[in-house]
Amino acid sequence: MSEKLQQTMFEAIEEELKKQVSRLDQPHTKPFYEMLTYHMGWTGEGAGSQAAGKRIRPLLSLLSLSSVDGNDNALEWLRAVSFSAAIELVHNFSLVHDDIQDNSPLRRGRKTVWVNWGAPMAINAGDALFVMANQSILDLLKYYPAEMVVRASGMLNEVCLQLTQGQYLDMSYEERNDLKMENYWPMIGGKTSALLSLCTQAGAYLGYAKEERVELYRHFGYHLGLAFQVQDDILGIWGDETITGKSVASDLVEGKNSLPVLFALEQNGKFAKRWQEGPITQDEVNDLAALLEKEGGKAYAEKTSADLTAKALGYLDQAAPQGEAGEAIRGLANMLLKRKQ
Amino acid sequence: MSEKLQQTMFEAIEEELKKQVSRLDQPHTKPFYEMLTYHMGWTGEGAGSQAAGKRIRPLLSLLSLSSVDGNDNALEWLRAVSFSAAIELVHNFSLVHDDIQDNSPLRRGRKTVWVNWGAPMAINAGDALFVMANQSILDLLKYYPAEMVVRASGMLNEVCLQLTQGQYLDMSYEERNDLKMENYWPMIGGKTSALLSLCTQAGAYLGYAKEERVELYRHFGYHLGLAFQVQDDILGIWGDETITGKSVASDLVEGKNSLPVLFALEQNGKFAKRWQEGPITQDEVNDLAALLEKEGGKAYAEKTSADLTAKALGYLDQAAPQGEAGEAIRGLANMLLKRKQ
Repeated sequence: MSEKLQQTMFEAIEEELKKQVSRLDQPHTKPFYEMLTYHMGWTGEGAGSQAAGKRIRPLLSLLSLSSVDGNDNALEWLRAVSFSAAIELVHNFSLVHDDIQDNSPLRRGRKTVWVNWGAPMAINAGDALFVMANQSILDLLKYYPAEMVVRASGMLNEVCLQLTQGQYLDMSYEERNDLKMENYWPMIGGKTSALLSLCTQAGAYLGYAKEERVELYRHFGYHLGLAFQVQDDILGIWGDETITGKSVASDLVEGKNSLPVLFALEQNGKFAKRWQEGPITQDEVNDLAALLEKEGGKAYAEKTSADLTAKALGYLDQAAPQGEAGEAIRGLANMLLKRKQ
Repeated sequence: MSEKLQQTMFEAIEEELKKQVSRLDQPHTKPFYEMLTYHMGWTGEGAGSQAAGKRIRPLLSLLSLSSVDGNDNALEWLRAVSFSAAIELVHNFSLVHDDIQDNSPLRRGRKTVWVNWGAPMAINAGDALFVMANQSILDLLKYYPAEMVVRASGMLNEVCLQLTQGQYLDMSYEERNDLKMENYWPMIGGKTSALLSLCTQAGAYLGYAKEERVELYRHFGYHLGLAFQVQDDILGIWGDETITGKSVASDLVEGKNSLPVLFALEQNGKFAKRWQEGPITQDEVNDLAALLEKEGGKAYAEKTSADLTAKALGYLDQAAPQGEAGEAIRGLANMLLKRKQ
């Protein structure tokens, strides 16, 4: 039942995204337009649902809206579909730039935009996606009072500034070897949680939830993001390669400042000593993952993730999402938090 | 008299820009904040009025507003100062990304952001400036009805999309040797004219000018941008080095697809032949500038610039800007169009 709702929403989101991106479908700029449709997973080599991704963020935003009492009707969430597209466009703008910044050759199994068209074009493609995010949210004016559109746009841009802050911290940490666990939270807060909190916060707001309830939705999304990221850190070191599609412990080789690693650095044991000596090679990665587990990094991260999950679900209970959409949000949260990949 | 008004506006713009950018002045992100204050010309080596630039775009926007009948009062334009800051932030976002894309080491005589902090950080710094542009324009809500804020934000983002289109064309032209003059106009329309037309259009709109008059202001700004760019092309080849600060004919060495060059390519004479053989060296640049002049490239561009200037000033006359601000706009337009540098 709830799967059918999600499928209907997914299709509406895709249609809206295509409409928004088609702003560049003009005679002079066809190849530019194709960079964006390629990145969105619609065209080019390997196009298809795998390349497009699950659109979890826009889904979460529409489900949040729809789960506010009295909105259990497609006509309600359809009015906000351009807002959900804005969120997905922000997400994709950040991915396109992130791939350049991290020098990542692949995204969802396909060549990244900068690999195909060069970094200068990819910077510009990311910029265009961000512009379109702002245009999409303004399209709410068709169904919402202007005051609410301005407020929603304010929420979106506040979160975008947090994204750039998280990105800054992530990049600046690469050169540091004095990091503590306290440095971890503002980074993932900006990089992961901010956008998820926007989905639930602005979703509830556009569903005409009361201010305090909007705050509960926001807290839910934020903690969902934190829990999700910590779990991602665990999978990046101890995940099942056949399921995650990434080589096991790849985060160790990449030198990622994940929570288990920062925990071990504060313990200042054997793992910390080896970590500070320089990059870890693929040969030693299994031994080091085992060492990190022995020194408590895995258990600590699992406990933290469990605590954050409980907190997120606690906020969700208080937010009291209703009906089929409410069920779907719970399902989505459980899927994200108990995922093996 | 009009100079005092411009100075007062300039100071208000600087103060507003500092306020907007200070959103990043937070404990975790001090060095990130400093990238932006450096780029804006306020801090770091070589900081000062030379580094900050003249803020022509925000000035033009406030003058446009102030020149609409009945707005000849500082209290009127002060209400829109966050909009003028938004325009300057968009301009600077595009400069930061442009410098990465063009591999430019210097901007206003100082090292560019990417040279100082690396391209990944510079991409992120540009992104933050763009976010702040969107936040600045939403701050209009303090003094304007929400409907007008949404409309102004829509105008801004429409122009930003045109900026990315102009940027795409500019970059894509680098690899082409079949360009015609017709390819020139959409490129500079997006890269130069769009933002200038936003200054005058949205300025008049926020000054409560009637719809048809807003359009006249927009046309004025757009043609001002076209005329300005063609003149810039002329100066980039035949400018006085001691005034422009660039080495003479440097645009020829850089292979820039300027209007005089595109004219000569369509003539298919000696210049075109040499141009198509590959990059031009510093040694031959004076001879080639003379050849280009002989084949009519300079005269054509001068005629075009004069026509566009007349058109711009014609629209300005129809827009009928009033009072001290009206005088100042005329002064600013003349300064831009008759400049030697």
